[in-house]
Amino acid sequence: MGNEEDAVKNISYENVTITSGFLFDKQELNRNTTIGAVYDQFFETGRIDAFRFEWKEGDEKKPHYFWDSDVAKWIEGAAYIIQKHPTPELLEKIEWLVERIKEHQGEDGYFNIFYTVCEPDGRWTNRDRHELYCAGHLMEAAVAYAQVTGKTDFLDCMEKYADYIQRVFVEEKSAAFVTPGHEEIELALIRMYEYTEKKKFLDLAAFFINARGVVEEPMMDEYRQTHKPVREQTAAEGHAVRALYLYTSMAMLAAKTGDEALACACRTLWKDITRRKMYVTGACGSTPIGEAFTAPFDLPNEGAYAETCASIALMFFGRAMLALENRAEYADVIERALYNGVLSGLSLSGDEFFYTNPLAICKSEYFENCWGKRKLPRTQRLKVFKCSCCPPNLNRLLPTLGGYLYGIEGERLYVNQFASSGVCDGEISCAVKTDYPRSGEVRISARGAKELAVRVPSWCDKITCNVSYRIENGYAIIQEPKSEVVFWFHMAPKAVRSDPRVVRNMGRICFMRGPIVYCAEAVDNGEDLHTVSVSADAEITVVKNQAFGLPCLKLPCRKRLPDDLLYASGTPNFAETELTLIPYHCFANRGESEMLVWLAEEI
Amino acid sequence: MGNEEDAVKNISYENVTITSGFLFDKQELNRNTTIGAVYDQFFETGRIDAFRFEWKEGDEKKPHYFWDSDVAKWIEGAAYIIQKHPTPELLEKIEWLVERIKEHQGEDGYFNIFYTVCEPDGRWTNRDRHELYCAGHLMEAAVAYAQVTGKTDFLDCMEKYADYIQRVFVEEKSAAFVTPGHEEIELALIRMYEYTEKKKFLDLAAFFINARGVVEEPMMDEYRQTHKPVREQTAAEGHAVRALYLYTSMAMLAAKTGDEALACACRTLWKDITRRKMYVTGACGSTPIGEAFTAPFDLPNEGAYAETCASIALMFFGRAMLALENRAEYADVIERALYNGVLSGLSLSGDEFFYTNPLAICKSEYFENCWGKRKLPRTQRLKVFKCSCCPPNLNRLLPTLGGYLYGIEGERLYVNQFASSGVCDGEISCAVKTDYPRSGEVRISARGAKELAVRVPSWCDKITCNVSYRIENGYAIIQEPKSEVVFWFHMAPKAVRSDPRVVRNMGRICFMRGPIVYCAEAVDNGEDLHTVSVSADAEITVVKNQAFGLPCLKLPCRKRLPDDLLYASGTPNFAETELTLIPYHCFANRGESEMLVWLAEEI
Repeated sequence: MGNEEDAVKNISYENVTITSGFLFDKQELNRNTTIGAVYDQFFETGRIDAFRFEWKEGDEKKPHYFWDSDVAKWIEGAAYIIQKHPTPELLEKIEWLVERIKEHQGEDGYFNIFYTVCEPDGRWTNRDRHELYCAGHLMEAAVAYAQVTGKTDFLDCMEKYADYIQRVFVEEKSAAFVTPGHEEIELALIRMYEYTEKKKFLDLAAFFINARGVVEEPMMDEYRQTHKPVREQTAAEGHAVRALYLYTSMAMLAAKTGDEALACACRTLWKDITRRKMYVTGACGSTPIGEAFTAPFDLPNEGAYAETCASIALMFFGRAMLALENRAEYADVIERALYNGVLSGLSLSGDEFFYTNPLAICKSEYFENCWGKRKLPRTQRLKVFKCSCCPPNLNRLLPTLGGYLYGIEGERLYVNQFASSGVCDGEISCAVKTDYPRSGEVRISARGAKELAVRVPSWCDKITCNVSYRIENGYAIIQEPKSEVVFWFHMAPKAVRSDPRVVRNMGRICFMRGPIVYCAEAVDNGEDLHTVSVSADAEITVVKNQAFGLPCLKLPCRKRLPDDLLYASGTPNFAETELTLIPYHCFANRGESEMLVWLAEEI
Repeated sequence: MGNEEDAVKNISYENVTITSGFLFDKQELNRNTTIGAVYDQFFETGRIDAFRFEWKEGDEKKPHYFWDSDVAKWIEGAAYIIQKHPTPELLEKIEWLVERIKEHQGEDGYFNIFYTVCEPDGRWTNRDRHELYCAGHLMEAAVAYAQVTGKTDFLDCMEKYADYIQRVFVEEKSAAFVTPGHEEIELALIRMYEYTEKKKFLDLAAFFINARGVVEEPMMDEYRQTHKPVREQTAAEGHAVRALYLYTSMAMLAAKTGDEALACACRTLWKDITRRKMYVTGACGSTPIGEAFTAPFDLPNEGAYAETCASIALMFFGRAMLALENRAEYADVIERALYNGVLSGLSLSGDEFFYTNPLAICKSEYFENCWGKRKLPRTQRLKVFKCSCCPPNLNRLLPTLGGYLYGIEGERLYVNQFASSGVCDGEISCAVKTDYPRSGEVRISARGAKELAVRVPSWCDKITCNVSYRIENGYAIIQEPKSEVVFWFHMAPKAVRSDPRVVRNMGRICFMRGPIVYCAEAVDNGEDLHTVSVSADAEITVVKNQAFGLPCLKLPCRKRLPDDLLYASGTPNFAETELTLIPYHCFANRGESEMLVWLAEEI
């Protein structure tokens, strides 16, 4: 680790085009359906009209203090879409919003709907009311808008806002708190810095990161990652999205500054999450109590909180770690999250969403009486949520998936994720042809790179390649790649076990094919999925499925038959039958149904 | 079922003496420690002094509306103890309380501390404030006191109270409700009837039972079993103790009146509980949300509510069912509850209590942050609870265990539970010698009975006997028993499985020896109990243990070793080791420790 910037550079979505295949289809779904569906819901709920700043006491649809961020993420997503597909209606909507932002920004640079129209005396008084978080998302939107349109008006507004924030928080110290209750502005400021190269943004980001847990302020606790200075945080704690946005910014800052203590904290936090606190789907934050990380290996399936945004944020963190050091495990986790915990947040129709993503649905557990209800995740996706952070997070993630595919370090080109795509970055260009993750065949034609580093997916234990390579940090390194390099990552479905300390998964296995985690749904297999047991060595048939865009799996299983008694010794009775597994992220697309990822292993 | 009274008569504790052995030891523990410990705690907390009726606004220790019932149960338990062991200090305490009751009973017969000193205008206004419940417990205490001392002063008070209740609820209908929110008075009135043979008490009990779910009144819901007329209730619903007290009274009434529709409802409810809603420990009511029954087969182990009182109430229900019809399954469930879910409520020291009785303790699940905590049962027993119904319920249950041992029907003597004991009922007498449940050898010498009916425990699949018998309704029937009849119920430890629809127990087994359910504790086996797997066919060593009064089990097991990765395919690694199991009801007696009943079955 030197003190140069970004040891490894992730190639921006701007320079990558995904041309066909599974991820392309998801991008198209977002462009054709999701971006409009989210806008419509935001319009319906008053989030768009809030930007008129006309709300007054007594009116309906009172702006919520996080609405600015919802719409900012939508703007960001819409801008990315426009980059590849100029769409006048989208641009018009964006520009209407940008005009309103310009119109209503304060003289001093402040912009916040809630604290302007609802609580004008409350500015900077409540650490937990997302003011800096909203500012951060507006800044990210402004960067995207500038990148795509070349217009800097929105970015100028946000520079003015950032300067104002700098005065309030760094110079005057006149706010009632020092760092945001919900992190986001840190990484946004670093993106402002990356785009403008103005060091003041990096400095302000560093200020917020370095002050965290150091300076006395309200609500300093694990929930908000303010319990310790960031370099001393060794365990992922508290609200998962807040935590992961912070860790992302820490890794970004470490990559920019070469701050080894910060990089070290990031590695420790990464390991804590990915070795002890992450679902097999790449989801994290296992409890609804504070939407938070809990104890190591506490990963309940039925009660999984597993917020879509947390999986997206884990992708951000992984991408930031890749910019810090070239280890394939970061890209492995990005892949796990993307194809499972992230995409499960979006219906196949593209217009319905999960905020929480359970790994098991057992209807009999949804208990309710006059004293309350057992708190379990929703079993069906919704069009919009009161707290609707996840849908526009998908809007902005999907068009930038190209930005996760390639990295560059000197004259070495990294292929981190696999999709039919083209990339061009300076002297280096590359075309990839693949039907991944349907197939494990990846054809890579690179030009201008002295070395090609192709991630060997961690799920893969059998590789064929038409050229020779050596393995380094999880990558297959090919020297002087000439013609087409072809990898066949053998994709036989296989059984996966958890670390035995994951209490809920002991005695259970799940099935994966490539990066895709599978689950059983009652709609295919009948109720009482928990009575099914399967062998880890079962012979599995891979069956094409048009609706899911990915194959299903069929395998023999045994279903335990009920006894007459609730408790009995003696040999249990089984029926031999067949189990159909579908890609986990496709569950809950065919009506309400019981669902199970971790299946009992056959005795 | 004819319309004579009580087809099968449970022989009263008055006529049975347990002379030695495991249950005798528990009775002695109650007599020597528990009864005093509960009194001391009740004194400390103000429950005893509340009977002075001197509390006034501003004073500490404001009487709670259920305190009368706590103390009434203590009086009842203390009275039973005196029957076998005259104890002047206990009698003095009882009589002081009885004097206070006589002193403060209203002219009209009303007695309730809370509604006299705290809310004098509130009498009969709130269905959910346990007024009739407290009255019921006072009536049960009065019956016990009369049985034991022959003095009827307390009973006279309660007759006066019952007459007043009859006027208010049946004649004047002047209360704000028709039936109690918390059932109890129904079964208490039937006990008043049994002791006094005054039919008015049975009629009033029948009134409350028959009006339930029929007459419009406040809070008619499943939680309070008022959602349907009792004869139409086919599923155990709502607050488990309320439900089981109601079902007990229904079965008692059905036995007295020959009401076949009521008996049929009781059989259906019994089956619903014991086939679908009961833990292997005989505990029931699986959720803290309303301390209630939930959906069939919803029996979470870590989150088990499983109130001690509910297991005691299940014993009451079973005993009432035995008076309705002679089927061994009722006595089987009584045995299951007594030796497991009931006794787990009491520490080995006799002075600490569980209100809830989890079947697994996994410390990493006890999550808490600034937003709240995951609601899981306590891991250690307490001396007293704010809601302290369970400790005095143990006080009154243990001295009456003799009343669960024998039944009589015509000239047939039933032996339902096994303990060294003597019984005498009219012409029939019997002496039993056994070290049950340490050993399965039971020696029975009966006189005056034409037939002996000995329950064959449902856990037993190998019996040896020195005389010939036939099986009828789960009993071994011996004609004209002459000399000593000896049964050897072979007690090899064995693995038990749940109905596969119990989601939490799929792929898991637990071990029982005789009626004793076993568990693993971390104090013997180290942490990470969930990583252990055991074979159902494991060779088990039975090891004497003085402290528990019952043997422990030792068996080989495999402990899965953590992998480096959170999720991995390939063969898992195991360490072969030995597992120590202790009687479930003895858990949490050696400091805080993880605990597990249902162990992963070896693959």
